[in-house]
Amino acid sequence: MKETLNIIKVGGGVVEDAASLASLLNQFAEMEVRKVLVHGGGRLATSMAASLGIESQMVGGRRITDAKMLEVVTMVYGGLVNKNIVAGLQAKGVKAVGLTGVDGDVIRSHKRPPKLVKMDDGTEQMVDFGFVGDVDKVDAQLLVSLIESGIVPVLAPLTHDGEGHILNTNADTIASSVAQALAEHYEVTLTFCFEKAGVLRDANDDNSVIPLIDEQEASKLIAEGVIAGGMIPKIENAFDAIRKGVRQVVITHSDNIEGSRGTTIK
Amino acid sequence: MKETLNIIKVGGGVVEDAASLASLLNQFAEMEVRKVLVHGGGRLATSMAASLGIESQMVGGRRITDAKMLEVVTMVYGGLVNKNIVAGLQAKGVKAVGLTGVDGDVIRSHKRPPKLVKMDDGTEQMVDFGFVGDVDKVDAQLLVSLIESGIVPVLAPLTHDGEGHILNTNADTIASSVAQALAEHYEVTLTFCFEKAGVLRDANDDNSVIPLIDEQEASKLIAEGVIAGGMIPKIENAFDAIRKGVRQVVITHSDNIEGSRGTTIK
Repeated sequence: MKETLNIIKVGGGVVEDAASLASLLNQFAEMEVRKVLVHGGGRLATSMAASLGIESQMVGGRRITDAKMLEVVTMVYGGLVNKNIVAGLQAKGVKAVGLTGVDGDVIRSHKRPPKLVKMDDGTEQMVDFGFVGDVDKVDAQLLVSLIESGIVPVLAPLTHDGEGHILNTNADTIASSVAQALAEHYEVTLTFCFEKAGVLRDANDDNSVIPLIDEQEASKLIAEGVIAGGMIPKIENAFDAIRKGVRQVVITHSDNIEGSRGTTIK
Repeated sequence: MKETLNIIKVGGGVVEDAASLASLLNQFAEMEVRKVLVHGGGRLATSMAASLGIESQMVGGRRITDAKMLEVVTMVYGGLVNKNIVAGLQAKGVKAVGLTGVDGDVIRSHKRPPKLVKMDDGTEQMVDFGFVGDVDKVDAQLLVSLIESGIVPVLAPLTHDGEGHILNTNADTIASSVAQALAEHYEVTLTFCFEKAGVLRDANDDNSVIPLIDEQEASKLIAEGVIAGGMIPKIENAFDAIRKGVRQVVITHSDNIEGSRGTTIK
């Protein structure tokens, strides 16, 4: 039987709030199974860029990673956020090692080609997102050998193309790709934790969490408009992971990462 | 018999010059022994701090690492410099993993207590260097297990106190501490490479390299004033490493890391 592995993805909103992050790290440290932490850090990069006088370019609500913004995300995700999380976990006795997808060739990607994007006014436009990487492959073997020697990988959302270029990659995608690669070796639960209690029937009511969603239910909820906006790709991502062998995906609040209050997708 | 391990320490002056760094990485990639790279990055941190409107505080020629400067060095050393070097090595087929001393608890340190420092006017003053770490111990076991699985560690000059605090640590000291810890497992050569050809008899003549220095010769050269200034702690550091089991220390130009043109200390 495969061992259990928990992959916790923590979003930028939690990372940038010291109290939320401390609570999350406490819970994470206490989890007594094999584990991996994947973090974002979006708004910290935006504010660091602003301090450096670099304007964040957005098109259709999405960030363009130009050369200067790539430097910023490399510094902020790979350095500041990653190493502070690792130092915090070490202080709690967790043998954490901070990695990006560049390290050990763990996550190889290719630069996203220009894509047609729907603008706010309904028109479509070809957009070059810049130094953004779409994942090609994850080296599960290196992660497994680290995990089996008692190390807890802490992954920052950066990948590389194998030709010397670092690429900015969505942290949800990193978490999902890593979960799929590790599902060959472990019984994987992938938990996305953020500032809400789960997938909500009523966006303004944290008590309206939908406890369980399967593919049929998801289609219905999307048709009804209950699942909308940024939650749609998250849910699609979740089913994609499950089709590729991940046991379950949980969407829950960061103060309750092992609890039963969130939404389970399976 | 122990296997050979080369530890290459590359200084900030090489790191910040794209052509010098590229040449160094080419040579490093071609070395066919077990190897570790330790990098600095001093002036890049200073210029990033300046871009963020943070003034670099210096006392008696040495940098004070206040809380804001610690953020900058964590970003620049642990993120920007480290991950770009790792991506560059991956492109040359080297399975590099970028680490700080925080990762995997590899290098534990303590915050340096305030110290008496000689000022330019000859007076002495108690100076608090801020978030600067003096090394307590290196976990050679983790480095060995990485190296033996074909991984090349690339170390950024950051350590931690085990209580959640990252500390800024001199890269020469990191290289020397790591060399000493690994000397129990390998025949270690520690190479400090920089912009000069080695220890020079005449500072203005790159052809005046002193090929070999032992402890007796070193005392003589210091008394004569041939070895002076910042080279004195480097040489002392080198003999310290040798007394603790490092086979030899080489001080040489970054375009010739395996050559015989530099200064060998043994």
